[in-house]
Amino acid sequence: MVGACPDEEGGSPVRERDRSLAEGILYTDQYQLTMAQLYYRMGLSRTRAQFEHFFRRCPDYGDHQAGYCVNAGLEWALDWMAEARFRPEDLSPLRGQRGRTGAPVFAEDFLDWLSREGTFEGLSIAAIPEGRVVHPNVPLTVVQGPLPMAQLLETALLNHLNYQTLIATKAARIHASGRGRLLLEFGLRRAQERGGSAGVRAALIGGADFSSAVGISHVLGLAPKGTHAHSMVQVFMAVGEGELGAFRAYAEVYPDDCLLLVDTINTLESGVPNAIRVFEELRRKGHAPVGIRLDSGDLAHLAVRSAKMLDEAGFPDTTIVLSNNLDELVLWQILAQIEEEAPRYGVDAERLLGRLAYGVGTRLITSRGQAALDGVYKLVAVERSGEWVPAIKISEAAEKTLNPGHKRVWRLYDRRGKATADVLGLDEEDLSRMAEISLHHPVDHGRHRVLSRDAVAERESLLEEVMRDGTLLRPHPTLEEIRDRRRRDLERLDPGVKRLVNPHVYHVSLTDGLWRRKQEMIEATINRV
Amino acid sequence: MVGACPDEEGGSPVRERDRSLAEGILYTDQYQLTMAQLYYRMGLSRTRAQFEHFFRRCPDYGDHQAGYCVNAGLEWALDWMAEARFRPEDLSPLRGQRGRTGAPVFAEDFLDWLSREGTFEGLSIAAIPEGRVVHPNVPLTVVQGPLPMAQLLETALLNHLNYQTLIATKAARIHASGRGRLLLEFGLRRAQERGGSAGVRAALIGGADFSSAVGISHVLGLAPKGTHAHSMVQVFMAVGEGELGAFRAYAEVYPDDCLLLVDTINTLESGVPNAIRVFEELRRKGHAPVGIRLDSGDLAHLAVRSAKMLDEAGFPDTTIVLSNNLDELVLWQILAQIEEEAPRYGVDAERLLGRLAYGVGTRLITSRGQAALDGVYKLVAVERSGEWVPAIKISEAAEKTLNPGHKRVWRLYDRRGKATADVLGLDEEDLSRMAEISLHHPVDHGRHRVLSRDAVAERESLLEEVMRDGTLLRPHPTLEEIRDRRRRDLERLDPGVKRLVNPHVYHVSLTDGLWRRKQEMIEATINRV
Repeated sequence: MVGACPDEEGGSPVRERDRSLAEGILYTDQYQLTMAQLYYRMGLSRTRAQFEHFFRRCPDYGDHQAGYCVNAGLEWALDWMAEARFRPEDLSPLRGQRGRTGAPVFAEDFLDWLSREGTFEGLSIAAIPEGRVVHPNVPLTVVQGPLPMAQLLETALLNHLNYQTLIATKAARIHASGRGRLLLEFGLRRAQERGGSAGVRAALIGGADFSSAVGISHVLGLAPKGTHAHSMVQVFMAVGEGELGAFRAYAEVYPDDCLLLVDTINTLESGVPNAIRVFEELRRKGHAPVGIRLDSGDLAHLAVRSAKMLDEAGFPDTTIVLSNNLDELVLWQILAQIEEEAPRYGVDAERLLGRLAYGVGTRLITSRGQAALDGVYKLVAVERSGEWVPAIKISEAAEKTLNPGHKRVWRLYDRRGKATADVLGLDEEDLSRMAEISLHHPVDHGRHRVLSRDAVAERESLLEEVMRDGTLLRPHPTLEEIRDRRRRDLERLDPGVKRLVNPHVYHVSLTDGLWRRKQEMIEATINRV
Repeated sequence: MVGACPDEEGGSPVRERDRSLAEGILYTDQYQLTMAQLYYRMGLSRTRAQFEHFFRRCPDYGDHQAGYCVNAGLEWALDWMAEARFRPEDLSPLRGQRGRTGAPVFAEDFLDWLSREGTFEGLSIAAIPEGRVVHPNVPLTVVQGPLPMAQLLETALLNHLNYQTLIATKAARIHASGRGRLLLEFGLRRAQERGGSAGVRAALIGGADFSSAVGISHVLGLAPKGTHAHSMVQVFMAVGEGELGAFRAYAEVYPDDCLLLVDTINTLESGVPNAIRVFEELRRKGHAPVGIRLDSGDLAHLAVRSAKMLDEAGFPDTTIVLSNNLDELVLWQILAQIEEEAPRYGVDAERLLGRLAYGVGTRLITSRGQAALDGVYKLVAVERSGEWVPAIKISEAAEKTLNPGHKRVWRLYDRRGKATADVLGLDEEDLSRMAEISLHHPVDHGRHRVLSRDAVAERESLLEEVMRDGTLLRPHPTLEEIRDRRRRDLERLDPGVKRLVNPHVYHVSLTDGLWRRKQEMIEATINRV
C-alpha cells in the first residue's frame, strides 16, 4: 500500500472511518442538532412540520442571466437519506462536546432519543422531478414529518440540490449556445473536490453529452471521453521524436479513434500539418481519422483555418473539438465569429459549425459568474392539535417574505403549447377545475390578472409524491429519462425566457386564496409586534 | 432502513460500491488512461518523468484581487493516493469500453499491466507545505516517477489542491478584512455537494476559527458552532408562543450558551427587546448571556443600534454575530460604516468592533467572484538513457510557456524580515551560497535586477520532500501546525501584497541559469518547426 502514514493525525474523508463520520448523518449544521434537542426538551419532538425547498433567483452571471433553471440532485439526496442514521460512532463526538461552562452540550436522554428516533423514517416528500425546468419561489421539494428530523435534513438536502440544479442550468445554457453540437464535460480538476462527481452528473442532466471523468461516467452508465494532453506531445519532443512522432504513436495505438491535440507548438504551422500527414497515413491503411482538438489561441479563427486545411487535404468530415475556457457567452461569440470569418477563407460556415464539438471544463463545473444557487429550506406549516397552522417569516425585503402553509404548484400552458406561468395555490384549490384563474404577483399588490379558460390549454400539477413515511414510492429514473424531461420542458419554454442575456421573466403567481392567506398573516404578525 | 430503493437504477456515490468506483483510482480523466496505454504500448511505461503543479494567477474576484494564495489540500491528495489502486472492479468497466469500430479501447495486456504496475508506489513528491503563502508560477508540488502513473495522478491532484488553495486564500482575506475577530464558516449548504468537506477544512486552514458543519469539524478535531435558525422562532409563533417564547425556550435549554437570532420579525422592535428580556431573566438566574445574531437588513446600522440597546440594558459584553452574504469587501464596508455611524448613536466604535463575530457561508465556500484556481500540472522533464531532458511547451501567450526542467524554489527575505521574492533556479544552483543573486522577470526580457548579499537577509528553500517511492516521509501535520504556518507567513508578507484591492505584485523571478535554459529551449523548438 502506498503512502501508509506513520501517524493518523488529521482526518480526511478518503479514509472510510472519517468519511462516514463527516458525510453520514452528521453531514449537517450544528444548529440543526441544538434545535433538535430544544424540540425534544420542549415536547415538540413529535410535532409535525412542513418545510419547502425553493430558490429565490435564477443565477445571475453578471453580464448574463438565466431565465430558468433545470432541477437536479433529488435522487442523490434521497440516497443520502437512505444511508444516514445516528450510529454509536456518530453519537460519540456529540457526547464529547462541551459548552462554555464545561457541561455537555447534548444530554444523554437526547442522545438516546437520537439513537432511537433520529431517523428519516417519519418523513414524507413531494418534489418536482429532476430534469424539469423550474422557476424561482416555486416549492421544488416539500418535506413533511416530525419537526426535529425534518429540520435536520435541511443542510444535506440543500447541499445536494443547490449545486446540481446550478450546474444542470449552466449546462443547458452552454448546450443551447453551442447549437446542440456534441458537448463534453471536462471539469473534474477544477471542481470542489469530490463535489465534482455531482457536478458531472448535473452537467449530463442539463446538456453535456459525455464527460471526461472516468469513474462517475461508468457509474452513470456512460462512456467517458478523452484522447491525449499536451504532455504526450512534450514527451515525444523530449525523446527526440517531435510532435509528428507523438501523433504517429497515437494513430498506431488508436487507429480508428484518432483525434489529435494540435496546439502544443504551433497550431497552423505544426499541429494541423502533422495531423494531416498522420491522417493520410491512417487512410492509406484503411482507417478513418476522427479529428483534431484546438485548446488555445483564437479558437474561431483557428477553427476556420484548420477546417480549410483539412478540407483541402481531403478530410472535410473530421471533427474539430474546441476547448479552453468556454462558456455560453464565449461559445456564442466564437460561433458568430466563425460565421463572419469562414466565407473570407472560402470555408462554408454552416458546414464548419456542423463538424464542431466542445470540451467545457472550469466554467461549467463551477458555474462561472454565479457559483451558488440561493436555494433555501423554510418552515411553512406546523401541526397543532391535529390541525395545520401556516407559518410565516416576515422580511424587510417583501420578496423574501414566505408564502405560508401547504400549497399546490401548477404549470399553465397556452394554446401554442408553451408554458406561460407557474402558479402557487392553496392545497384545496384545484386549478384543473377552475373556469378562470385569478393570478397575483407574489409581492406587488397592484399586479393582478385573470386568465380565461380559453387562454389556458393545459394545467399540470408539478409536485409528485416521492417518499411516504421514509419509503421511496418509485425507483430512481434513469439518466436518460431525466434528460428527456429536460428536453421536453425546454421545448415548451418560450424563446424569450431562454435568451442568454436579459431573458424575459417567466411568471410565477399566487392564486387568490394563497394571496389572501399571505396578506392576512403578514398583517397579523406585524400587529402582534 | 429508510428509502430502500425498489430498483438500483442510477448510481450515486452515497452507495459504497458506486463511491469506490467513482472516487477511487478512476477519479481521473479518460485521457490519462488512453495516454497510459500509449506509453505502455510504446515501451515508455518505465520512462521516468517529472511533473510540476503550479497556478498561473492569483484569484481575481472582479472588483478585487488576491495578491497571494494560502497553499492547502496536499494531505488529502496524499490520502487519496494511499487508497487508490486498480482493483478488479475498476478494470471491469475499462474492459467493457468500446471504440468507434466496436473493438475494446483498452487491450487485455494493458489492463493486466494496470493491475500489476498501475500504482503510485514508484512516485516521489516534493511540495511546499500546506498553510504556506504561495505565489503564481512557483512549483508547489513536484511529482517524479514512471510516466503513466505520474501522468494519471494529474486529475485527482489538481482536484484536491486547486479547490482547497482557493478557499484557504479566500478565508485568509475575509479573516484580514474582519480584523481578526472570530470567523465562523457556515457554507455547507451552498458547497459543491461533498466538496463541502474540503471547503470547510480549507476555510479552517486559511482563517476561519470554526465551522458549523458537524461531522467534518469533529473529524478535524474542532467543535462545530451553531445555535438556532429562523424556523425555530417560526415554530413558536405558529404554536402561539411568539418570538419571546422561542427565546425563553432556547435560554432554558442552553442557559450558559444563549445566543439568539433576532431578525425573524423585526430586529429592533421585536428581536433585540425580546432578547434583552430573556438575557435579564438569565442573569437573575445566575447565567451570563452570550449574545445575538443579525442575519438580514443593514448589518452595520443594526449592529450599532443593537449594541446601544444591549449597552443600555447592561449587556455591554455580549457578542454580536453578523451573517448574510458576507465576504471581504462587504465586511470591510460594514466595519467602515460602523466606525462612521457608531459615534452618532453614542456607541464606542472600537468597543463595538471588539464584540463582533462573523458567520460567512456561500461567499467563502464558493470563493465569490472567482470560483476556481487555475492550477495546472505540467511535464517539465523526461529521463532518457539515464539523463534528464527538460521538456517545454511553447505558447503564443509568453507567460504560458513553461519553465523547463528540474528546479529549486527559494524565498528571499529582506532586512525587515519581509519576503521580497520567490526565485526559481536550476537544481544545481545553490542560492544560499551565491554572493549576489541575478533575477530575471519570467517573461519580459528587459526586466532584470541584481540583489546584493546585503539586501537579502534570509534565503529559504521552499520545497520539502514528502514522499519517496510511494512512502510518506513524515506524519501529516495537525490543523494547528498548518494554521501556524499561515499566520507566520502572513506576518512576513508585505502589507501592499496583502491589500484587498489592487494589491502590489509579489515578485517571482528566474535565476540566470533557468532563464538561459528557457530561452535556449524556446529557440530550439521554434527553429525545429
